[in-house]
Amino acid sequence: MMFLVLWLCATVTSYSQQALWGGAQILSPEIHEDNTVTFRIRAPKAVKVEVTGDFIAPQLIDTPFGKFEGPGVAELKEGEGGVWEYTTPEPLTSELYSYTFLVDGQRMHDPSNVALVRDVASVTNYFIISGDRGDLYKVQDVKHGSVTRRWYNSPTLKEQRRITIYTPPGYESSNKSYPVFYLLHGSGGDEEAWVSLGRAAQILDNLIAQGKAVPMIVVMPNGHTQNAAAPGESSREYIPMMGGGPRQAVASMEESFGDIIKFVESNYRVKKGKGYRAVAGLSMGGMHSASISAQYTNTFDYVGIFSAPPIPALLSTDNNPDASQMADEFVNKLKVQQKNGFKLYWIACGKTDFLYQGVLESMNRMDKIGFKYIYRESEGGHIWRNWRIYLSEFAPMLFK
Amino acid sequence: MMFLVLWLCATVTSYSQQALWGGAQILSPEIHEDNTVTFRIRAPKAVKVEVTGDFIAPQLIDTPFGKFEGPGVAELKEGEGGVWEYTTPEPLTSELYSYTFLVDGQRMHDPSNVALVRDVASVTNYFIISGDRGDLYKVQDVKHGSVTRRWYNSPTLKEQRRITIYTPPGYESSNKSYPVFYLLHGSGGDEEAWVSLGRAAQILDNLIAQGKAVPMIVVMPNGHTQNAAAPGESSREYIPMMGGGPRQAVASMEESFGDIIKFVESNYRVKKGKGYRAVAGLSMGGMHSASISAQYTNTFDYVGIFSAPPIPALLSTDNNPDASQMADEFVNKLKVQQKNGFKLYWIACGKTDFLYQGVLESMNRMDKIGFKYIYRESEGGHIWRNWRIYLSEFAPMLFK
Repeated sequence: MMFLVLWLCATVTSYSQQALWGGAQILSPEIHEDNTVTFRIRAPKAVKVEVTGDFIAPQLIDTPFGKFEGPGVAELKEGEGGVWEYTTPEPLTSELYSYTFLVDGQRMHDPSNVALVRDVASVTNYFIISGDRGDLYKVQDVKHGSVTRRWYNSPTLKEQRRITIYTPPGYESSNKSYPVFYLLHGSGGDEEAWVSLGRAAQILDNLIAQGKAVPMIVVMPNGHTQNAAAPGESSREYIPMMGGGPRQAVASMEESFGDIIKFVESNYRVKKGKGYRAVAGLSMGGMHSASISAQYTNTFDYVGIFSAPPIPALLSTDNNPDASQMADEFVNKLKVQQKNGFKLYWIACGKTDFLYQGVLESMNRMDKIGFKYIYRESEGGHIWRNWRIYLSEFAPMLFK
Repeated sequence: MMFLVLWLCATVTSYSQQALWGGAQILSPEIHEDNTVTFRIRAPKAVKVEVTGDFIAPQLIDTPFGKFEGPGVAELKEGEGGVWEYTTPEPLTSELYSYTFLVDGQRMHDPSNVALVRDVASVTNYFIISGDRGDLYKVQDVKHGSVTRRWYNSPTLKEQRRITIYTPPGYESSNKSYPVFYLLHGSGGDEEAWVSLGRAAQILDNLIAQGKAVPMIVVMPNGHTQNAAAPGESSREYIPMMGGGPRQAVASMEESFGDIIKFVESNYRVKKGKGYRAVAGLSMGGMHSASISAQYTNTFDYVGIFSAPPIPALLSTDNNPDASQMADEFVNKLKVQQKNGFKLYWIACGKTDFLYQGVLESMNRMDKIGFKYIYRESEGGHIWRNWRIYLSEFAPMLFK
């Protein structure tokens, strides 16, 4: 009886909130048994409704920096009650997919899907197709680690900064010490990126449960030193990467990285020493990983560079003399890193990545000095799909 | 020079991601110095664009359960380049406000504002006006607590369940023990509700920094025992409160609450005993707080009932004989609770809340047995604005 009363209250409250905000009554996306997917949206006044997502054949977009692959577009058809519908012609392979609708050219989220994720200044819907790779990105019935948003002090940057930390299942209930994996985001991201679009907590939970990765702490700091935290999470005004703004960072990510290591090693039960530290990142975070592992001598045995030139100065392939000199200086650092030794230097890039040439040229320079790395080339470009794959492949190689 | 190279990479990446997803170029909402606010959206093909939000005079909505106050609606005017605009006629008072756009009647989020928050199955944009109450909801330049999403074992419900835990600034770096505040969501919520729309972490950080609240641990479990976690955060299919579904909960929130206390008290440095435990909640969570504090004898010295009848059976004011008998039984439990003693029993409700009559009737019954409570009546209805206010007023009364 008590249950009925509570249920009534729930119903009333839900109803009112639905009514207030016009909540969803439509099933979208609907993942069918054969993994085709139907998208639906009610838009009775619309003339044209499209869906754009990374499961549709990509189209090339012209930019000042060249042509980029963008998500493709498909048209929905209007049915009864002004509900538009599109079903993928083929089953989708197991993956996490992003999409938004275009209603008469106006980009809008799917009001029926609360799964939303922010990427840079844009928010998209997403869904996961199970079966293979997508299973690694889903919450499974396994033991789960904890994800904590907290703040550390950076004496170098003279401020408190927000950081996301994954501790593996069992961390709180044991006295064991764990290795630490520093996982860095790209220029469009922040300390939320790897746990949202990157699915880092699910990937680690699942790899650990399968015995493929050892239990480890994953530290995800904010790599933009001009900001203390993700948008809305700091008392200071958020400064977009491109926007300049009222505050220049007093030091770079590289210069201030020691503060993070010190914080982690004095606040968590960690195994200390080079053999128990890894650093990897995507794009800007990949370049951070290269320069940090070179600059903090003998600190990391495992380095991962995802979709970025391992020699950051080789970002552009044109003949900038300053870049060339910087590249030479960086190669000298790599010689020291090579001499000090490490266990894994892993470089991954997609064939259509706009940084692909810089990656190839970096490896060419590294070959000349006999620097030992492993190269993993994938399909696709500078996209989260690849970064989740790279994380899924890199984490199992650590601390073994 | 290195900075320039990284900046270039950032620019390229951001540009491509903006291009891919059609990111925002428009400033919206723009909060002016006098606290009027301008909303903007580019919609060149639209015939009518409106904004609906809780800062516009509310309108009444008819529902099967009666009339409810819903957020008001205001029209935007089209300007150059198909950019529509609306500025509030008056400055807004300091508060957190929610809104969405209606483009030709189609609800859509503000593509220029990444501040999005989920409420039940709907997602809205939000913004905060500083100056007074809003300052309590903003991240300020104070010491911050940590917010952890983790999992606990519930032997009663026979599963791992997700839970959100706030530990106060200094928790990790001290050996002190802290009191515990169990903070429960409503029927539309889950373990994310109080830290998202409820701004619980910011409110506690700020109240503690001001010396108004004592440092405490805040425990925010999931109150729907038919689900293990918020949508998308569990391996089981999410079962909406109204939807029924494949799995009935094996026990109620009340029956399984002991698992939560046990988990917290064996995993955190807590001060044990009645004087160091508080429980409060909104709506369904308020009824949970009433029944849990009555059922777990001599366990809580502080009880808060926000926007709910403290005698849950008096939810409806009609003459249901079963409800009447249940109310009598509950009053008998209250007599025991009264006899055992407590420090604070705090009831808060808005004058236009649809549960207002049930709250009044509950207090009427409590008066008859001389049950000592404090009643806080506010303006407004069954809305998050009130629940943030109640939390801001309740937390400072705890553990003193």
